[in-house]
Amino acid sequence: MDHQGVPYFTVPLHALIALERSNGVPLYRQIAQRVREAILSGELIEGTRLPTERALAQELSVNRTTVMNAYNELASEGLLERHVGRGTVVRKSYRGYDEDLGGEQTPSWLFGLAAGEDAILGPDARVLSELASMGERREVISFAAGTPAADMLPAELLRGIVDQGLEHERQLALGYCPVEGLQSLRRGLAARMRRRGVALDWQNILILSGSTQGLGLVGRFLLNPGDEVVVEVPTYLGAIQTFRALGARVLGVPVDNEGMRIDLLESLLARRHPRFIYTQPTFQNPTGVVLSTERRRRLLQLSKHYQTPIVEDDPYGEMFYSLPAPQPLKALDVHENVLYLSTHSKTLAPGLRVAWLAAPAQMIERLSLHKQIFDLNTNAIGQWLVAEMLRKNLLDEHLIRLRQRYCQKRDLMLRAIQQYWPEGVRVNCPAGGFHLWCRLPESIRARTLLREAAQEQVAFVIGEPFHIDGGGHQHIRLSFASPEESHIEEGIRRIGNVMKRMLGRRAVRDEQNPLYTEHLPMV
Amino acid sequence: MDHQGVPYFTVPLHALIALERSNGVPLYRQIAQRVREAILSGELIEGTRLPTERALAQELSVNRTTVMNAYNELASEGLLERHVGRGTVVRKSYRGYDEDLGGEQTPSWLFGLAAGEDAILGPDARVLSELASMGERREVISFAAGTPAADMLPAELLRGIVDQGLEHERQLALGYCPVEGLQSLRRGLAARMRRRGVALDWQNILILSGSTQGLGLVGRFLLNPGDEVVVEVPTYLGAIQTFRALGARVLGVPVDNEGMRIDLLESLLARRHPRFIYTQPTFQNPTGVVLSTERRRRLLQLSKHYQTPIVEDDPYGEMFYSLPAPQPLKALDVHENVLYLSTHSKTLAPGLRVAWLAAPAQMIERLSLHKQIFDLNTNAIGQWLVAEMLRKNLLDEHLIRLRQRYCQKRDLMLRAIQQYWPEGVRVNCPAGGFHLWCRLPESIRARTLLREAAQEQVAFVIGEPFHIDGGGHQHIRLSFASPEESHIEEGIRRIGNVMKRMLGRRAVRDEQNPLYTEHLPMV
Repeated sequence: MDHQGVPYFTVPLHALIALERSNGVPLYRQIAQRVREAILSGELIEGTRLPTERALAQELSVNRTTVMNAYNELASEGLLERHVGRGTVVRKSYRGYDEDLGGEQTPSWLFGLAAGEDAILGPDARVLSELASMGERREVISFAAGTPAADMLPAELLRGIVDQGLEHERQLALGYCPVEGLQSLRRGLAARMRRRGVALDWQNILILSGSTQGLGLVGRFLLNPGDEVVVEVPTYLGAIQTFRALGARVLGVPVDNEGMRIDLLESLLARRHPRFIYTQPTFQNPTGVVLSTERRRRLLQLSKHYQTPIVEDDPYGEMFYSLPAPQPLKALDVHENVLYLSTHSKTLAPGLRVAWLAAPAQMIERLSLHKQIFDLNTNAIGQWLVAEMLRKNLLDEHLIRLRQRYCQKRDLMLRAIQQYWPEGVRVNCPAGGFHLWCRLPESIRARTLLREAAQEQVAFVIGEPFHIDGGGHQHIRLSFASPEESHIEEGIRRIGNVMKRMLGRRAVRDEQNPLYTEHLPMV
Repeated sequence: MDHQGVPYFTVPLHALIALERSNGVPLYRQIAQRVREAILSGELIEGTRLPTERALAQELSVNRTTVMNAYNELASEGLLERHVGRGTVVRKSYRGYDEDLGGEQTPSWLFGLAAGEDAILGPDARVLSELASMGERREVISFAAGTPAADMLPAELLRGIVDQGLEHERQLALGYCPVEGLQSLRRGLAARMRRRGVALDWQNILILSGSTQGLGLVGRFLLNPGDEVVVEVPTYLGAIQTFRALGARVLGVPVDNEGMRIDLLESLLARRHPRFIYTQPTFQNPTGVVLSTERRRRLLQLSKHYQTPIVEDDPYGEMFYSLPAPQPLKALDVHENVLYLSTHSKTLAPGLRVAWLAAPAQMIERLSLHKQIFDLNTNAIGQWLVAEMLRKNLLDEHLIRLRQRYCQKRDLMLRAIQQYWPEGVRVNCPAGGFHLWCRLPESIRARTLLREAAQEQVAFVIGEPFHIDGGGHQHIRLSFASPEESHIEEGIRRIGNVMKRMLGRRAVRDEQNPLYTEHLPMV
């Protein structure tokens, strides 16, 4: 890579760009137009290197895809060159574009499918990966990611398993394994699910590289583009993205304190005949609610009556903080209408990427054909480690430790909220899972709160991405599982300070303009 | 699961079914028809349990999907019941179908998408997974799977890495990681590729859960249904399946001793404008050939001229048995038209599921959006183990050991072939990779040879699945990397005996009917 001769850009480009968010011109076109003018006017000289997409997006508070689209447009006009390792540079001799066609401009095929991606993936497509990388910024207190606490990742247990068995079982742990998964793991998981009340056998288990893969496989099996799917509002945003990426239309049913509003579901099933119902009946993400027993029965009746399968996503079912332990919805599923997904990303370690689907055996056979096409099989080392955890009865002890610890963290966070936050915030006390779901006072928007909290080095997730109906402006999700205890109190204190500041400003503004009120959409 | 009261099927069902392979009626319908008759006539009584799909498929020498479709058809007619854990059973009171509608028949949505799957996945969709599970049958000498030798899986090295670092680095190794992959691994792989002559940086690397996932992502990015893709003939069957599953039409260009026939490629590019070219330029699977330097240059010129990107799949590039070490095609790729895929499944362990794509940084960004939708990220433990192998400089030593060992196995297999096989077989001597590619004498069909060899407990892959043009009837692929040395000689001897027997029968038949000759399609 030759970096010589390319001047680094010194003027902060974002200072040249004043975005108007409500003038109807797409943001990426506004950016492209301003950079185009700057190049043509000579403000940006040839060879100048522009900021990275990420950097400019941050400065302008826009989605990174927006900057990417702007740069791509300018590159396709010959005004910019985009080079691996050298970034985006104002093109040398851009006026001589025609003579230079044999040169080294970025190939056209690379821009072939630029359009439509936002539509498929949704504007929040980057959210998950930014959440994931946020954990790497040590200075931030993050309540954003629904991940296990670092010090609860069972490194000692896994090291012990490797020490005792890896060399002897190298073929199982390191070789290719059947698409459906290691048989020892399938048997272990089936036995465990039977103990939780679900009647099934190991042939009903398909091992997955994370439950996200399961959502994609089930979606591919059941959906054609344009088909409709029912989800809860709010719900796990990864599910929304995956279904939309498959071309599905996503319909919403609100959640209340007893879970999905089954009364509203019924009319939707009757009117729209969706292809399936996606639900998290136990410790729902983000709300933490549990679907009531009565609604579970009714949901299964409706599923049978309308021949509409249910996809039960149960990442948190084993993460309960009071007894009795909740049963999966699938335990009541005598007619085999429930496709059950769960994962070890919360109970053991996300880095193992071991999840599973429990479903009718015919469906397992069919889905394994699809799985093989897209990743051949799930990593054997992770499967073997989990299977050994089960075989050696190590998981149950580990779960007991997790439940104690996370329950303490939940209580710590709730106490800190009582102590440091202003009145008018409504917070649930979930009986399981990783999250608190908070409704802010009417005058505080979640997005504004996040922006100001980020300046105090605290992060969380705002409610909007969990909502398919435009709601969630006044909700935030706080994860208590992963942050350290000392950070929980400090982070909650900082958020509380920001809230109080915002409420103070609001009071002043209200005095100045007493008629001003906002009506925010609520779920 | 209650198994009581269900009689096991005792009559071998396959004996009731005589398939006619050329009468125009699809095989699954023939099977369904015969079973239907047997039920209605009382030959099969109520409650009889039928053989599993796999077992019946084996007995009838048909694809498992064929049996599945037959059973599904009968189930939808109410003649069979399919139960998790209890298999397929002749329905009780099938005559009372109507009264029994509220009962426990398999839900209708499960059969919703039964049709068309063979068309999408191809009739060989099960081949890969059967290859994978074949390794579990200890009594078979298998030359089928392109997998590393079990005793070369680096269990000791990996155990050492776990012992030294897992507890300290638990967050990296066991937590969620960025969609693009662990940065340490991306940096390590980029440095390694630079040493192999490819100019790139770590931002050009996307970590994948196996190269199959890379084929799916690239395909999804570049293809719309109905688009065309060029592959070599023969080529890796997993690639064909993945492209077809995405709705692409696959066009073929033959391979000769210098690799893909670039002269034939040109006219295809000019006439058809395919979306990309899929190639394995180095130790191609299955032929083992290396694309010549002259053809590499020409291929890159054509790619640029027609603006058609190249997907270079390079699983075996580091597995060379003579010097100089081959360079990737991408090393010559000044215009960034090559998307490079490779994997650690051959060089370290398939069970880690760690592969990577090297591509323009914009493309990495775009593909990581798609990857996140379908598996969030690649398993961190495998990534961390590989990154540590690189950081500690353990990979190079390991590769030296692998090359010595596999080269010896290749030579052992070639010598055994010389010793035990009849004349008239043509075998290449590949300079790298895992496979011998053998052309059989004109009178021996690969499929017949496999059937008879399987009775001698020897397995290999026949040529047909590697061919999109119906060819390969007289080719077989033998993998020398994974079988033990003693098994190589014995397996080759057994295949040789079968060949001699077949040639003997043939000689007798030719004497009886001297005019009889076959003209088999050849590539």
